[in-house]
Amino acid sequence: MEQTDVTRQLARWIVGLDADAIPDTVRQEGVRTFVNWFGCALGGASHETVDRALAAVRPFSGKASAQVIGRGDRLDALHAALVNGISSHVLDYDDTHLKTIIHPAGPVASAILAVSEGRAVSGKDFLTALIAGIEVECRIGNSVYPDHYDRGWHITGTAGVFGAAAATGRLLGLSEQQMTWALSLAATQASGLREMFGTMTKSFHPGRAAQNGAMAAFLAEADFDSSERGIEAPRGFANVLSTKQDYDEILGGLGQRWEAALNSYKPFACGIVIHPTIDGCQQLRERLPQDGGDIASVHLRTHPLVLELTGKKTPRTGLEGKFSVYHAAAVALLHGDGSPTAFTDAIVADPKVIALRDKVEAVADPAMPEDAVFIRIALADGRTIELDVPHAIGSIERPLSDEAISGKFRKQAALVVGEDKAERLLQTAWQIGSSADAASIAHDSAH
Amino acid sequence: MEQTDVTRQLARWIVGLDADAIPDTVRQEGVRTFVNWFGCALGGASHETVDRALAAVRPFSGKASAQVIGRGDRLDALHAALVNGISSHVLDYDDTHLKTIIHPAGPVASAILAVSEGRAVSGKDFLTALIAGIEVECRIGNSVYPDHYDRGWHITGTAGVFGAAAATGRLLGLSEQQMTWALSLAATQASGLREMFGTMTKSFHPGRAAQNGAMAAFLAEADFDSSERGIEAPRGFANVLSTKQDYDEILGGLGQRWEAALNSYKPFACGIVIHPTIDGCQQLRERLPQDGGDIASVHLRTHPLVLELTGKKTPRTGLEGKFSVYHAAAVALLHGDGSPTAFTDAIVADPKVIALRDKVEAVADPAMPEDAVFIRIALADGRTIELDVPHAIGSIERPLSDEAISGKFRKQAALVVGEDKAERLLQTAWQIGSSADAASIAHDSAH
Repeated sequence: MEQTDVTRQLARWIVGLDADAIPDTVRQEGVRTFVNWFGCALGGASHETVDRALAAVRPFSGKASAQVIGRGDRLDALHAALVNGISSHVLDYDDTHLKTIIHPAGPVASAILAVSEGRAVSGKDFLTALIAGIEVECRIGNSVYPDHYDRGWHITGTAGVFGAAAATGRLLGLSEQQMTWALSLAATQASGLREMFGTMTKSFHPGRAAQNGAMAAFLAEADFDSSERGIEAPRGFANVLSTKQDYDEILGGLGQRWEAALNSYKPFACGIVIHPTIDGCQQLRERLPQDGGDIASVHLRTHPLVLELTGKKTPRTGLEGKFSVYHAAAVALLHGDGSPTAFTDAIVADPKVIALRDKVEAVADPAMPEDAVFIRIALADGRTIELDVPHAIGSIERPLSDEAISGKFRKQAALVVGEDKAERLLQTAWQIGSSADAASIAHDSAH
Repeated sequence: MEQTDVTRQLARWIVGLDADAIPDTVRQEGVRTFVNWFGCALGGASHETVDRALAAVRPFSGKASAQVIGRGDRLDALHAALVNGISSHVLDYDDTHLKTIIHPAGPVASAILAVSEGRAVSGKDFLTALIAGIEVECRIGNSVYPDHYDRGWHITGTAGVFGAAAATGRLLGLSEQQMTWALSLAATQASGLREMFGTMTKSFHPGRAAQNGAMAAFLAEADFDSSERGIEAPRGFANVLSTKQDYDEILGGLGQRWEAALNSYKPFACGIVIHPTIDGCQQLRERLPQDGGDIASVHLRTHPLVLELTGKKTPRTGLEGKFSVYHAAAVALLHGDGSPTAFTDAIVADPKVIALRDKVEAVADPAMPEDAVFIRIALADGRTIELDVPHAIGSIERPLSDEAISGKFRKQAALVVGEDKAERLLQTAWQIGSSADAASIAHDSAH
């Protein structure tokens, strides 16, 4: 589909979007997205990755106008966006737009929560900006996925910067012309390589996308001009960073079909592709004679992406453990765990986990859907037990309930800010849509 | 050439580089690079692009520790790096590594001058960092050029971020491990699209590369970890952003052959590919009967890149004029001018310039070298005059003399800070190598 004004048409839609025209179901998914994201930012707030990022950026922070969620620091809005984006993704426990494997909230919510502080943004306007940003981010992702991702781009970073620019630009009240520039300023900052997976730099990507997208909006607000065609031009984002460009995915049915309604929330604290395996192993654990002690072998049949992304045979750290389907299967079978405690340095080095991990083998089957797995366990006594997981928990077909999202929030947030505060913040988060000052929850999370 | 440790070997070289092992000729080219760059940063300091960038970033600036060159503002070092990178490139008058069309100083010098303020960095250490950064930047550029550039990447941004990280990391005294991470943190931020040419966002690229590369070094200093193979991994910089990967260009003859010695300085305030045309038209102007009034047509035969990059037939603004070989030829013939005053909004709209511009035609000839042009002018009376320019002024074969660099510095700097101050800063700039506090020149430029 040949297009000459994708960037401008998209900008026009963002600027003109009527908050009241967003269907209630979409708005409610926006609330679920926010609650899940805020819980993850709290859960990740005490991580060493965040400590080190803060140590690096504190000396450069401007006026302390925005809260680092779940910590004592206040930074300027751009640096707060960076750090909150890091903490919300560092446990690999956030959200997923399943069609693109984008983690939508990190870049967008991190940007607008930080920017909203001190501006008394209503919950309604905040949610509208969040939904608009996620819509933009996921549609741009759709237009280039999977070729763009296959080439090696971390799509949460590269598409996320557009979402952050759109959402921030919406809060700033940019004109159509300014929003067009903001999207092009986002395009020229699109970055983030998959090579960084398994290091602290992976969670740097959504943080930097939040910060850079917000900066794009502030530059455009100051009439710092840019291309009119940053997305679709021959040397624009889609052509330079992808071999696929489907602009109908960006412009088709805007305001009619909502990508923002398709967000999903991770039940487990690791890459989405391992979730079917953890889900299946947790179920099989109930059928094992005892705690896995007599397992002779574990056979997995998975989508090829599982091994491509999480094929680490011998992870050395908790972070690397998130990229090992073998480790994840072993911990789920031994302890039934897929939460952050399943991916600590200690559990990765546990001899019992290692012994079981070494018995796990995985085979890639292109016919297997991404959210499915087949598992066969051979026991030492010769018996075998099998399980087919057609759709993992957390998939569109088996979405997390509001109660499950609350449970996930409570469990990880309590570890950082304590149970009482976690509970208060959880209740506030669910009410974000009717708040008179949406960003007050950030300040309330200071710890 | 298969390589598995390009990033680490490069990091080892940067960290271990002995300042006294840099040949005098290379060190002197570093001084010329610095003088030329500082003059351009002064010359661009009052540009509207810089005004708007400052308006956007001022509210987020941290502790005012670094000078915005040639202005009254002081910002935190990262924001000063951004703005100085913008001002040094905004007139398209800076420097060029001709093998890659990288403008080397912008990303590197902008980063380290800002970072050096308040650290009492000696001129010797400063120059060593500058040369190391430019060497890294140009070698990484060589490894992927021309495929990477042809795909649409603005290589000054994408390669520049590595140079800024290397040079800043050198000043911070990073360990080999930290420098490896810094290079990978640079890799994952590599960005900048050629679609932005002709807008303010083009000069944003070297500025952001400076800021992002410096941030990479500060993150690595805080042990924020990253890939060990950000450059050469299958999903690292070279493979994701280019179809060509020649790692021998990065590692071969390190410390023996110096890319930093191959820098060149623009005699004219526009893209390097138009320089042969301006040079030739200036020479032909001397042979015209009068001020171009009786020119019937101007025929140019150029390298194809000239039309690809600067083929705008009807530029509307001064900035667009830099991307019009037709405009540049007309102004050079009419006024003999190729300096910033040849690319103002007013001169682009001048009816006499437009009339002559419309008589210029250009033909691409793949056999023509990039620094050459053939020009034939037909006069109204039927006579023709011709000129072959085999190597434009400013090329490696016809480098700018120190005196010409000084003249360029004086002319553009005086417009912003006045003649006396320009002269004082020029003398200080030439002495950068023996300064006890290299960054004091930044503070002295406050205006």
